[in-house]
Amino acid sequence: MELLKQRLREDATLLPGNVLRADSFLSHRIDVALIDRIGEEFYRLFKESRPNKIVTVESSGIPVALSVARCFGLSCLVAKKGFDRSAENSYQTRLLSYIDKQDYMLRISRLFLERGDRVLLIDDFLATGSTLHAMMEILSMAGATLAGIGIVVEKGFQHGGDELRAKGVNLKSLCIVDSVDNGIRFRDH
Amino acid sequence: MELLKQRLREDATLLPGNVLRADSFLSHRIDVALIDRIGEEFYRLFKESRPNKIVTVESSGIPVALSVARCFGLSCLVAKKGFDRSAENSYQTRLLSYIDKQDYMLRISRLFLERGDRVLLIDDFLATGSTLHAMMEILSMAGATLAGIGIVVEKGFQHGGDELRAKGVNLKSLCIVDSVDNGIRFRDH
Repeated sequence: MELLKQRLREDATLLPGNVLRADSFLSHRIDVALIDRIGEEFYRLFKESRPNKIVTVESSGIPVALSVARCFGLSCLVAKKGFDRSAENSYQTRLLSYIDKQDYMLRISRLFLERGDRVLLIDDFLATGSTLHAMMEILSMAGATLAGIGIVVEKGFQHGGDELRAKGVNLKSLCIVDSVDNGIRFRDH
Repeated sequence: MELLKQRLREDATLLPGNVLRADSFLSHRIDVALIDRIGEEFYRLFKESRPNKIVTVESSGIPVALSVARCFGLSCLVAKKGFDRSAENSYQTRLLSYIDKQDYMLRISRLFLERGDRVLLIDDFLATGSTLHAMMEILSMAGATLAGIGIVVEKGFQHGGDELRAKGVNLKSLCIVDSVDNGIRFRDH
């Protein structure tokens, strides 16, 4: 998505340790018009996959997932971080966050995810893929099917995306960053 | 807002300890169409206050704040929870969450909040008001002005809203719940 690549070139922040931040338009300050364009692009890419649930992880995946859900005319389900005291009410699994170096429980209420659901997972960043693997575990607990995964920015140099594609997952990233060593280099795909 | 009251009557969960949850349409599973109606209502209520920034707190305030920002044609600024290692880059303050009984740091980057900004704060719930007081402290650090506060559900029986109104804050809640003892009782306002 050319508009997004241009915005990343202009406004993303590169920090030591391969950290790429899009704070000024994607997570901390949110450019609603851009997010809506991204939502429309995911709709175009996944409408043939006929999802019936749009699912994301709090909190930075929420804005894009809402725009996608609006395009599909669906509600948006947000996996919550943190332990649910009444564990029997939720599908939950453990996740180690790459950014925070911290353990989380990730959970979705049993009320909102059902056997046979066709889930489109949406997230802003994909690095090692640990969050997506945790989410796929939750879908599997619920008996739901993964219709696809839509990612705004894939960090190709951390290879989580390549592993998922090798497994046959219907993963589509709006851009794949292959290097941030001397400015951002995008993969042609 | 009658549509919202009706939805709360039908779908909110009441738990011991005055806990009122709107998981099925406001936070965990998000009814995008309802959220957009709420965003339009806040636009109507606050357009005369001429905010130039829409600000909320992660993560459950994000959906409504995005819809409000879209109506105003503004971007949406999300105060982040958690300590920023490079404290000089952010305005930050401590907050004790009523729900989690846990200390958070709440922060906004100095890059995105400026002296003279007219901020409309949006959040889903208001109980004791501790989050809003922390946010007002951050605005004050930045030299920004509070143009108004828009709340989806105010828990009137916890009196945070009454205190803010007594101080002259331009607070508007779409509904005020005065009791959850025998079903939900709304305040006429």
